[in-house]
Amino acid sequence: MAGVTVGHATITTGDLQTGVTVVRPHPGDPFTHKVPAAAVVINGFGKSVGLLQVNELGVLETPVALTNTFSVGTVATAQIRAAIAAEPGIARSTTSVNPLVFECSDAYLSDMQALGVREAHYVEALASSEGDFTRGSIGAGRGMTCFGLKGGIGSASRLVPLAGRSFTLGVLVLANFGKLECLVLAGRAIGPALAKRLAQRARADERGSIIVVMATDAPLDHRQLRRVAARAAAGIGRTGGYYGHGSGDIALAFSTAAVVPHDATTPILTCRTVAEPLLDPLFEAAAEATEQAIVDALFSATSVTGFAGHVRHALLDVAPDWRDLAC
Amino acid sequence: MAGVTVGHATITTGDLQTGVTVVRPHPGDPFTHKVPAAAVVINGFGKSVGLLQVNELGVLETPVALTNTFSVGTVATAQIRAAIAAEPGIARSTTSVNPLVFECSDAYLSDMQALGVREAHYVEALASSEGDFTRGSIGAGRGMTCFGLKGGIGSASRLVPLAGRSFTLGVLVLANFGKLECLVLAGRAIGPALAKRLAQRARADERGSIIVVMATDAPLDHRQLRRVAARAAAGIGRTGGYYGHGSGDIALAFSTAAVVPHDATTPILTCRTVAEPLLDPLFEAAAEATEQAIVDALFSATSVTGFAGHVRHALLDVAPDWRDLAC
Amino acid sequence: MAGVTVGHATITTGDLQTGVTVVRPHPGDPFTHKVPAAAVVINGFGKSVGLLQVNELGVLETPVALTNTFSVGTVATAQIRAAIAAEPGIARSTTSVNPLVFECSDAYLSDMQALGVREAHYVEALASSEGDFTRGSIGAGRGMTCFGLKGGIGSASRLVPLAGRSFTLGVLVLANFGKLECLVLAGRAIGPALAKRLAQRARADERGSIIVVMATDAPLDHRQLRRVAARAAAGIGRTGGYYGHGSGDIALAFSTAAVVPHDATTPILTCRTVAEPLLDPLFEAAAEATEQAIVDALFSATSVTGFAGHVRHALLDVAPDWRDLAC
Amino acid sequence: MAGVTVGHATITTGDLQTGVTVVRPHPGDPFTHKVPAAAVVINGFGKSVGLLQVNELGVLETPVALTNTFSVGTVATAQIRAAIAAEPGIARSTTSVNPLVFECSDAYLSDMQALGVREAHYVEALASSEGDFTRGSIGAGRGMTCFGLKGGIGSASRLVPLAGRSFTLGVLVLANFGKLECLVLAGRAIGPALAKRLAQRARADERGSIIVVMATDAPLDHRQLRRVAARAAAGIGRTGGYYGHGSGDIALAFSTAAVVPHDATTPILTCRTVAEPLLDPLFEAAAEATEQAIVDALFSATSVTGFAGHVRHALLDVAPDWRDLAC
Repeated sequence: MAGVTVGHATITTGDLQTGVTVVRPHPGDPFTHKVPAAAVVINGFGKSVGLLQVNELGVLETPVALTNTFSVGTVATAQIRAAIAAEPGIARSTTSVNPLVFECSDAYLSDMQALGVREAHYVEALASSEGDFTRGSIGAGRGMTCFGLKGGIGSASRLVPLAGRSFTLGVLVLANFGKLECLVLAGRAIGPALAKRLAQRARADERGSIIVVMATDAPLDHRQLRRVAARAAAGIGRTGGYYGHGSGDIALAFSTAAVVPHDATTPILTCRTVAEPLLDPLFEAAAEATEQAIVDALFSATSVTGFAGHVRHALLDVAPDWRDLAC
Repeated sequence: MAGVTVGHATITTGDLQTGVTVVRPHPGDPFTHKVPAAAVVINGFGKSVGLLQVNELGVLETPVALTNTFSVGTVATAQIRAAIAAEPGIARSTTSVNPLVFECSDAYLSDMQALGVREAHYVEALASSEGDFTRGSIGAGRGMTCFGLKGGIGSASRLVPLAGRSFTLGVLVLANFGKLECLVLAGRAIGPALAKRLAQRARADERGSIIVVMATDAPLDHRQLRRVAARAAAGIGRTGGYYGHGSGDIALAFSTAAVVPHDATTPILTCRTVAEPLLDPLFEAAAEATEQAIVDALFSATSVTGFAGHVRHALLDVAPDWRDLAC
Repeated sequence: MAGVTVGHATITTGDLQTGVTVVRPHPGDPFTHKVPAAAVVINGFGKSVGLLQVNELGVLETPVALTNTFSVGTVATAQIRAAIAAEPGIARSTTSVNPLVFECSDAYLSDMQALGVREAHYVEALASSEGDFTRGSIGAGRGMTCFGLKGGIGSASRLVPLAGRSFTLGVLVLANFGKLECLVLAGRAIGPALAKRLAQRARADERGSIIVVMATDAPLDHRQLRRVAARAAAGIGRTGGYYGHGSGDIALAFSTAAVVPHDATTPILTCRTVAEPLLDPLFEAAAEATEQAIVDALFSATSVTGFAGHVRHALLDVAPDWRDLAC
Repeated sequence: MAGVTVGHATITTGDLQTGVTVVRPHPGDPFTHKVPAAAVVINGFGKSVGLLQVNELGVLETPVALTNTFSVGTVATAQIRAAIAAEPGIARSTTSVNPLVFECSDAYLSDMQALGVREAHYVEALASSEGDFTRGSIGAGRGMTCFGLKGGIGSASRLVPLAGRSFTLGVLVLANFGKLECLVLAGRAIGPALAKRLAQRARADERGSIIVVMATDAPLDHRQLRRVAARAAAGIGRTGGYYGHGSGDIALAFSTAAVVPHDATTPILTCRTVAEPLLDPLFEAAAEATEQAIVDALFSATSVTGFAGHVRHALLDVAPDWRDLAC
């Protein structure tokens, strides 16, 4: 989507198969030029940070960072340092800054105890962000597992006709959830057949999570973005997910149609919002694009061998014939 | 499920195609013997009552009533009167009682402005409750629409092996939501084909809602029941739902494994709960049974002609060949 | 506040000491011209209705009604009927309407089991609404108890300088909470001394509740109104309240600075909002005006004898010397 | 309270006036022996971490850490490392661990941009924890400001008779909020008089926050602890607080009456909970002890000079005659 960019830093050194992914809402400084945002917790077995303030103030003020569970603190610190570099008045002449870091556990493929992500990885991911980005086993997605297969970063978008115009809704997922037996791929319940085939290669692992980041150029306020984000739950359900006990399933939506200035130099702000009854197509698009982004993560992934020799196979490596699997 | 009963009162008088459905958690008085419960709002375009107190105190204290949107007040009043009849000390020697009424709009098939439900209908539904109950175009489900077809009451259940025992999770839905084009029936995306066939008979109607009532004999506390109820969202998503703008999508879960006495004669209560990491199969069952209960509502429904000659066709009337529809 | 009016219907017939109070956000039809609103539940031991939809859609679409706990259903039905009378397309050519009724229990002074409020009382309260309204033992406040004394309707307001202009924040409370021993009156902890004096006249009663309705002409969106409403908790705390177990403590805030049209004829709406960092004086005003409105309810009340000969004494009847009480 | 200990690490090196405070719920490892807990966000302008999972799973599994806003990431990482040291199976043979770190901004007295807290400070605070702990300008409280005066760590407790026994509720606050003009000290509104006296010494600063940590030996489940924690809002209000715009006001409550084992070796747990109607005295105690803990922070504080020569005066330094101030 126009202006939104994504960058990765990927670590692939034997026991470490992990990284950082960054979503920038616009090319500028999101601290001085915040964007409307909202987060929804579908299942809260997760350690993401920054949601409290996003939902109190209705804006995000840093790029959105994704990483592994144990690197949240380091990446949050890196976000603070980057924000200060861009705006030296932070915590001196003006308020502090709210880091926004989401996480999934990649402990099966990567030695999470090693705390391998450094602040420099966030800087690298930020610097490399571009509009036409790579998906799959990259960045924060490097070590992720989805339905017992190799998961990671996926993306999809929809054009939504609304009010005589066409708006875009883009979804990026960090897909790290699901039981193989439950997998429904583009409407095909191939999970059981695939589970049978992979019986000796895959391990049942229900400790997954999924982070869903949505961006839209439709003018929506915080409350409306919360409603849009909530539709991620339908998309997850359609792939066979059910927000497992050990899953941190969280969705964040932001709008690029407005910036909210940090300084209240204009005491009364003028904003635009879509008339509420017209939101329905955006909700439908949010559910669809979430499902498709998860599928995209599975198709974009490449097989990875990591910590302790653990392996996750890419879907296309183990089931290039997925269309022919019984369902 | 053992002890849980369901009753209906159905009004089928021309312009009025509506009614009341009641779910009783046990044969006794739920005011004096409350049960643990929790409610989750998936989309809050709805007028259900009683959720605030259920989520503050963690129990329900009346049967669960379902009806049309404009009859909530009348049914709530009927619940108060019934509770007083059973326990005359209410609002005199003891506290007041919390009515618990859920609703969907049946305005297409029934003249909702006529406010046709009377308190007597609640009494009738309550009196007729039984373990082996009827589903389909009956009770509160009489006038409901689901995916442009005839909706209404559906039910499904799962046996969940857990801790060396087998627990039951039962789901009852009042299904009144969905766009026909989006329908996925038991994994088959027959919506588009069916929409084409019904082009001249169905009306696109996105103003639906769904109420999901879950009962389980697993010992769960309020917080755990909230987690179980939240999985209704996955089941709705799997049928093609996306919690449309105008939809009141609400789930309630209660446990029959314990009763909480109204009077605090025992100052310290002993309770049992499933160890948290073992909940996962219950979550999976909740998602599955919700999907199946919606499908059951569609298959159990019979066609209904109502207000202003409006018609909703039962799935089996318009698509007895549903297995052969392209998807 | 300009345009906001309040009306009462009061029942004073022996065992019935109850009524209905209505707050109209503007002189027009709030269904076709909704106003931004938000509700906050401080303690959810309560049976108020309509909050779900207010918080999902961010607007209210009926007047705000207050009554006793068991009359919520009747008043909600009356609201539906009044809304249909004003807009006959409701639930036919357009959506249904969301009743918004708050309640406290007046069971000590009024025979709540008698269900004495009729739909006509809502109509009467609505018809009598005016800008310069009466407070005290009137309308929904007729049978209420506050800190063991006579409670009821109270009101206060603040002028808030903001952005070079002056905005108004008005608060109306239905005060029915508090333990006498805890009472702090305008900063004076006179509760213990007063409790001693009234030992033989007052009954310890912790089953109270408080409804706080805030109106402002500052341009605020739903999220900001939620933040303003949350400050009611500070005001309640300052009088000695602590949101007791049996209390339904709920705050609603709405803005008169904008109307949201029911029909989405303008697909993209333009709205104005106060810049977030400037909200602080409104929060301070909300806490202060809530405290003062509670005090106003106590000072405006007149003693009432009701159900079963029960009596609640007005503060000025039992402590005209309140300034001289030890604290 | 029996078993609960508190430790501090304090940095007092010129421009750095900051630190870490740790509350340990019991002497053992809270990962293997979790305790029931709940968190409530009163105002979400804050960067605390770990609340999502506490509220999803109803337990805490690390000690509670308090520090300055920009050190949350470092302290969270230190918590992860300490948890792994105690239980090497974390993120390998078992799940990951949820850090729980609360923060307030001490940017006025300490150079928060210097990111001066190290992981070793968490270790030091943890190692020094004891039942009889110091309060005031120490640990995380070193650089805090409260009502324009020196704030910091305060504590208070109440004995609550309940069910024929006496339970304890203890409160620790990190007090860093409030406008001097609003201060009410033990019922005396001395703020205006004190503000006049300090006109040339104090700076109006509304960017504060308060963290309230409650511990009780009453057997309460997550939902009940959430209700207890919510009463912190009343205590804050009584001191003159109103949850200012820039304030991160968060309360956490935990119970020491039970431990929840990490491993689900016992599939069905037995727990005890106080009968709901008996909770009221705990709510009253929570409000009172929060107020008193804030007052204790003000009285325990010592004046501090820090970053850029900024000074915060202790209450007793500038108003030893506080009892005689006009109010």
